[in-house]
Amino acid sequence: MLNRVRSAVAHLVSSGGAPPPRPKSPDLPNSTSAPPAAPSQAPRSPPARAGSGSAAPVRTVEARASFSRPTFLQLSPGGLRRADDHAGRAVQSPPDTGRRLPWSTGYAEVINAGKSRHNEDQACCEVVYVEGRRSVSGAPREPSRGQGLCFYYWGLFDGHAGGRAAEMASRLLHRHIREQLKDLVEILQDPSPPPLCLPSTPGAPGSSDSSHLVGPQSCWSSQKEVTHESLVVGAIENAFQFMDEQMARERRGHQVEGGCCALVVVYLLGKVYIANAGDSRAIIVRNGEIIPMSREFTPETERQRLQMLGFLKPELLGGEFTHLEFPRRVQPKELGQRMLYRDQNMTGWAYKKIELEDLRFPLVCGEGKKARMMATIGVTRGLGDHNLRVCSSTLPIKPFLSSFPEVRVYDLTQYEHCPDDVLVLGTDGLWDVTSDCEVAATVDRVLSAYEPNDPSRYTALAQALVLGARGTPRDRGWRLSNNKLGSGDDISVFVIPLGGPGSYS
Amino acid sequence: MLNRVRSAVAHLVSSGGAPPPRPKSPDLPNSTSAPPAAPSQAPRSPPARAGSGSAAPVRTVEARASFSRPTFLQLSPGGLRRADDHAGRAVQSPPDTGRRLPWSTGYAEVINAGKSRHNEDQACCEVVYVEGRRSVSGAPREPSRGQGLCFYYWGLFDGHAGGRAAEMASRLLHRHIREQLKDLVEILQDPSPPPLCLPSTPGAPGSSDSSHLVGPQSCWSSQKEVTHESLVVGAIENAFQFMDEQMARERRGHQVEGGCCALVVVYLLGKVYIANAGDSRAIIVRNGEIIPMSREFTPETERQRLQMLGFLKPELLGGEFTHLEFPRRVQPKELGQRMLYRDQNMTGWAYKKIELEDLRFPLVCGEGKKARMMATIGVTRGLGDHNLRVCSSTLPIKPFLSSFPEVRVYDLTQYEHCPDDVLVLGTDGLWDVTSDCEVAATVDRVLSAYEPNDPSRYTALAQALVLGARGTPRDRGWRLSNNKLGSGDDISVFVIPLGGPGSYS
Repeated sequence: MLNRVRSAVAHLVSSGGAPPPRPKSPDLPNSTSAPPAAPSQAPRSPPARAGSGSAAPVRTVEARASFSRPTFLQLSPGGLRRADDHAGRAVQSPPDTGRRLPWSTGYAEVINAGKSRHNEDQACCEVVYVEGRRSVSGAPREPSRGQGLCFYYWGLFDGHAGGRAAEMASRLLHRHIREQLKDLVEILQDPSPPPLCLPSTPGAPGSSDSSHLVGPQSCWSSQKEVTHESLVVGAIENAFQFMDEQMARERRGHQVEGGCCALVVVYLLGKVYIANAGDSRAIIVRNGEIIPMSREFTPETERQRLQMLGFLKPELLGGEFTHLEFPRRVQPKELGQRMLYRDQNMTGWAYKKIELEDLRFPLVCGEGKKARMMATIGVTRGLGDHNLRVCSSTLPIKPFLSSFPEVRVYDLTQYEHCPDDVLVLGTDGLWDVTSDCEVAATVDRVLSAYEPNDPSRYTALAQALVLGARGTPRDRGWRLSNNKLGSGDDISVFVIPLGGPGSYS
Repeated sequence: MLNRVRSAVAHLVSSGGAPPPRPKSPDLPNSTSAPPAAPSQAPRSPPARAGSGSAAPVRTVEARASFSRPTFLQLSPGGLRRADDHAGRAVQSPPDTGRRLPWSTGYAEVINAGKSRHNEDQACCEVVYVEGRRSVSGAPREPSRGQGLCFYYWGLFDGHAGGRAAEMASRLLHRHIREQLKDLVEILQDPSPPPLCLPSTPGAPGSSDSSHLVGPQSCWSSQKEVTHESLVVGAIENAFQFMDEQMARERRGHQVEGGCCALVVVYLLGKVYIANAGDSRAIIVRNGEIIPMSREFTPETERQRLQMLGFLKPELLGGEFTHLEFPRRVQPKELGQRMLYRDQNMTGWAYKKIELEDLRFPLVCGEGKKARMMATIGVTRGLGDHNLRVCSSTLPIKPFLSSFPEVRVYDLTQYEHCPDDVLVLGTDGLWDVTSDCEVAATVDRVLSAYEPNDPSRYTALAQALVLGARGTPRDRGWRLSNNKLGSGDDISVFVIPLGGPGSYS
């Protein structure tokens, strides 16, 4: 993410009072643990099609602020130097095109045009095996293979104000998801509705029946039906939360400066879960039709949530900001005049008499890519940013940021997919200069040039999308084919085939 | 609204400390003023098609808890008695079918099947003239006719826990809208963008240019473009707010018990504004296609807003409620076990260990028509309810209710409408037993039986919709043609033709 956080503002307070790193449970992923390729964290029972080496996780980069790329790119030291060349901006893809990642997933990336020293995008692609923690019925479960669950996982992490948060999330978020799913392994494989209540300890009886109900009121005598799908959604939501909490705990010891947007896809038991926190985007292109699978979270799209928080908790505004929005900054000489405004309840505008406190900075200002919250940050959901403060102030910004993603579910079994149907994930470097329709047109153009069973076609598509957004260097910067400025940002793209030769089918 | 508020719970605290009625300005509508048919409030310059008597507003009903119906129904004392007959449930429509209301609007209603003593639905249809308050430029404006604005107005108000709030809103809300629009009369008729800032007093210069901008930051150097449309939206939003504040001020003097949902349509300068606060619904049926023009606000649809408020302001829960949602009431014996829950951030579900405070009543419980907030109320937006308390408690419910509508805009000029294209407004009495598709089918069936230029066709359609939702009396209650139970609730329906013989065109 380019300029998402005003660099003058994103200064870090290193003297915070965070407790030392302390995993929440013995099973919890730890950023200092061995790389997840080690047997205890790697997929234990990957399905036949996904080679055990095909989804090697991102390795821990120990040196701070070092330049790191996903290990699935298998960059040599020379390749790493080329990838870090802000002048050349070479497009990188995994070698052994189309066979490296599960489902023949295509991937391509390019780094920014010198706007930040190190690449702030990170990516991850994994096949993750989840072993159940214990039996739902309370009986000790035999730890045999085959009782667990596998999920496929793709993640894009777009960092800002430093690269460590994106790097940490790319290494650990899928392990938090695995952790959240451990309790659900048996439940998700049992076709009966999930039990509402589980025993606290193995062996104790559960109480999932409705005979225990009390209360004469109709609204209490019913019980909600909770689906398996909503349990997976809840697991992903909580995994984001725990990832964010881990960053808070470890921010001092591991220099987790900055924050990152996270766009994550989980395929589990026939359904695709797309979780987005930030301004990356996912779309499905199916038979030429565009199906949006995410929405962006920015000061503009989340204006009312932010204003409501500032209104209900004025102490978070520190006397420096007003929760009201004005179409531009109010001038002191306009005191007593009437200016357009809107509050947390309004979508329209009205006039109000300007009072002294309206001269404060507006909590939300600007439009489009220039929209900012507290004049500082251009995204309102994501991971990290625990040390982010308002410029020349100790006012923390984190209380306004949400680490919760919006999760959308796409049932792969509801539609017969062809090899040209794809799920495209991209960071804002792609979408800032490329519309959904342009992406769909590129999907059609590139895939029709390859045989349907050629596994390299999705990598070629990812590369075409990245190249199309980067442009080519000309006299005055990187230019697109229409001579408009290309994206000078990091650009990272996954192309996930929904009915391709290497997919689940 | 039938059973929207548990009657055992909706007890009124008459000893509240509300200040005596005090209008906010000399122009503000007052519930004790003369009926709005008087010259100063009636449309001063209605367009030719709308006869001055055709949109007579609902008259003030002075006797408390008396039975009142919209004056446009022109019910005789005998007709009023028949309308109040819960056994017969006669369908009422305005006489002089199709010529009484502007645009040949159709209207029909029926009262509930004895579930409440008096009808709690109210309706209003008006042509309202707005005279500008003063010149934007500051120069005193000549108060000549023709400089003002006219808007068409339709409103449905579905009361609960008493009929006075619905009655008051039906008499006054359009006047609050007129009041909010007074400042905008010149601005809305000027094709240039609205000024961002207005002088505080006539004659003082405005400051709408951008030369006053300060601040080097890009997010402050820009100014938002505010559309005319968004000013009208803001005016309607604030009118709802002021209506609600007036109810709060006058609740003691005028016995404004209970509350009401409000669904309001404003036609102004080529656009239709549909404002909804509650669980009424508006759809457009255009060339057979259904276009939803509102959404319902209930404890289910607003769960996260309610939970967020309870989380941020726990004092509003009074130690009696938990902001967490559980699929059913938690039992004391389940302490320490793990139950499914979701908090204000989640859409999915997860397990948590039951702690003591989880045994409190859930803020939101139940599903569908049985969903309740604080075990009391089934709608979360509307007007009034200032005295509503939780059963056996002094805990106020009002802080969780919002008086702000969601406003959707439909541009009538963007499509060539035919006489069969209609906007249908209905209270939940209609929608509880009738789907959008069934309404569309009835639109097609009824309108095709009439000549396109027959003004009575829309009244016939409204009657058919009400009859179809009421059913006919049989052995075991009112039954629909499919033998399912009909709606025992009040049912009120407006059918507004978008391209009919009497419409704006």
